[in-house]
Amino acid sequence: MPELRKDPVIGRWVIISSERGRRPSDFIEVMEKKKGGFCPFCYDNEEHTPSEILSIRPDKSEKNKPGWTLRVFPNKFPALRVEGQLNRQGDGIYDRMNGVGAHEVIVETPEHFKEFIDLEIPAIRDVFWAFRERILDLKKDVRLKYALIFKNHGMSAGASLEHTHSQLIATPIIPKTVVEEIEGARKYHEYKERCIFCDIIHQELNDGSRVVFNNEYFLGLEPYAPRFPFETWILPKKHFSQFESITDEMLEHLALIIKEVFARINIALEDPPYNFLIHTYPMQEDPNDSYHWHLEFMPKLTRVAGFEWGTGFHINPTSPEEAAQYLRKINL
Amino acid sequence: MPELRKDPVIGRWVIISSERGRRPSDFIEVMEKKKGGFCPFCYDNEEHTPSEILSIRPDKSEKNKPGWTLRVFPNKFPALRVEGQLNRQGDGIYDRMNGVGAHEVIVETPEHFKEFIDLEIPAIRDVFWAFRERILDLKKDVRLKYALIFKNHGMSAGASLEHTHSQLIATPIIPKTVVEEIEGARKYHEYKERCIFCDIIHQELNDGSRVVFNNEYFLGLEPYAPRFPFETWILPKKHFSQFESITDEMLEHLALIIKEVFARINIALEDPPYNFLIHTYPMQEDPNDSYHWHLEFMPKLTRVAGFEWGTGFHINPTSPEEAAQYLRKINL
Repeated sequence: MPELRKDPVIGRWVIISSERGRRPSDFIEVMEKKKGGFCPFCYDNEEHTPSEILSIRPDKSEKNKPGWTLRVFPNKFPALRVEGQLNRQGDGIYDRMNGVGAHEVIVETPEHFKEFIDLEIPAIRDVFWAFRERILDLKKDVRLKYALIFKNHGMSAGASLEHTHSQLIATPIIPKTVVEEIEGARKYHEYKERCIFCDIIHQELNDGSRVVFNNEYFLGLEPYAPRFPFETWILPKKHFSQFESITDEMLEHLALIIKEVFARINIALEDPPYNFLIHTYPMQEDPNDSYHWHLEFMPKLTRVAGFEWGTGFHINPTSPEEAAQYLRKINL
Repeated sequence: MPELRKDPVIGRWVIISSERGRRPSDFIEVMEKKKGGFCPFCYDNEEHTPSEILSIRPDKSEKNKPGWTLRVFPNKFPALRVEGQLNRQGDGIYDRMNGVGAHEVIVETPEHFKEFIDLEIPAIRDVFWAFRERILDLKKDVRLKYALIFKNHGMSAGASLEHTHSQLIATPIIPKTVVEEIEGARKYHEYKERCIFCDIIHQELNDGSRVVFNNEYFLGLEPYAPRFPFETWILPKKHFSQFESITDEMLEHLALIIKEVFARINIALEDPPYNFLIHTYPMQEDPNDSYHWHLEFMPKLTRVAGFEWGTGFHINPTSPEEAAQYLRKINL
């Protein structure tokens, strides 16, 4: 059973996931792994993954068989497990609980050598549709407080399998970074009686220097204080606190802007490793006026080094204004 | 001039260091850089670095000439600059200030192909002596609130030059991560009237399962909630809040435990990339009873991925008890 442990000083929780346990030599091996070979995410290998939870099968083919265009199943080596109780315990001055939660994999295409950025717009829409459906389902389990949706592309961004996929991890506590973001937005709302993200959208559209792309429903921009070169955010222009409230119509526009913005980054940086993640409000809470869901895209061009770990400060060698200008100029 | 910018929601500062500015293609090049070539940190290349601030010259040789065994100088491409005023400004809803601070490089040996872990104990002591001397000097500049000392070893841990060196960055504000750690320790002290780190040392020595090495003055352990496999902390057993209060006698013992613990990790993980950093109390403040300086060593075996960025949670596949047992068993 994975275990959640809390750092007693800073209050940061970590997941000790011994089922993923590796000996020191295994780490060395992992860093040298090469392209190709057997893939559990390809057609005809469905029995090598846990049974599917959700899939898109235009040909109405049978569950856990080929024929799907998108497939969701529990992670075979989950960071957190759905079974069991939290069982919060002390251990002298320390705190721990069982690693209860959900960890799912969303395989975005059956094509092994296709990258997320090369998917057609309807396929990108389906990926975000699947994210919504999974959150709406997991929400029924009241033990699960938060759902993080994320994608790791490329080994240096943390991907361990090369067949394109995203992940969803639902946690039994609201993570510290999320609490801080919610608190920051709440304090601003208390003071100004406005949503800080709505204010950001307003200021950025007026200013224009950090805007990458703008459509009827969404805005793609380089944030004012980016941690990483070419860090890019996509925000819905209308106020919604939770991603799962997205309508079918908005899903179409989200897929459009994602294709547009990601393609520009992909050309500029020559297929960089990256992470993207959805920042959304905790799923057991009611929507509110202060928090505004958005997507954060982070190419991994710089290494996180000692200074970043020690301070939480990031050193970014590229200003967001330069990055936005560069991305706007790309010809698609 | 580098610039400090604050994320308006989460309150995190970033350094936009345009003097280190690179075009997208430069990032690609950086990731492919290979071993060897011209090195500004070697003998006879002293004129390629800014003028030295501190050095150890057993042969009493001339400043900025060969003959040194350790050499400290300002970073040629500093993340922050000593000149100028902070000049705090608003920009609509955003906040910025000038990147005032100090950024120094400590070259630990003239030998290009020697690694930190292979230095003799007196040379390791000299490195920590230099850290102390530099903090004591920078402390006189009251604009500088915090000094972070850190080392990046290996490209995937953020090192950009291969000749072994450490760095010191002094910042005009106390970084968020440091504030959180200090606050956590302060609250514990308020409640218990004891230092939380002293309590950790006491519990770990009684328990023993996470102890790696223990000498008269220092304890090396795997923390209870480590972010990374084989993350290792070294704490002084007596309570001191600031690193710079370290005595010459303690410096000898610190060098001994560092050599002992780092050598074990180096054998276990086959020369891993790593960061180490010193967590210490802000340098303009008086010592106190609640904060306790320590060194954190983090081998970089896993990649920080989307989940970690989105939540602040880390997933660690190796429990600290397993890691400690493994390190204790290494024959040096």
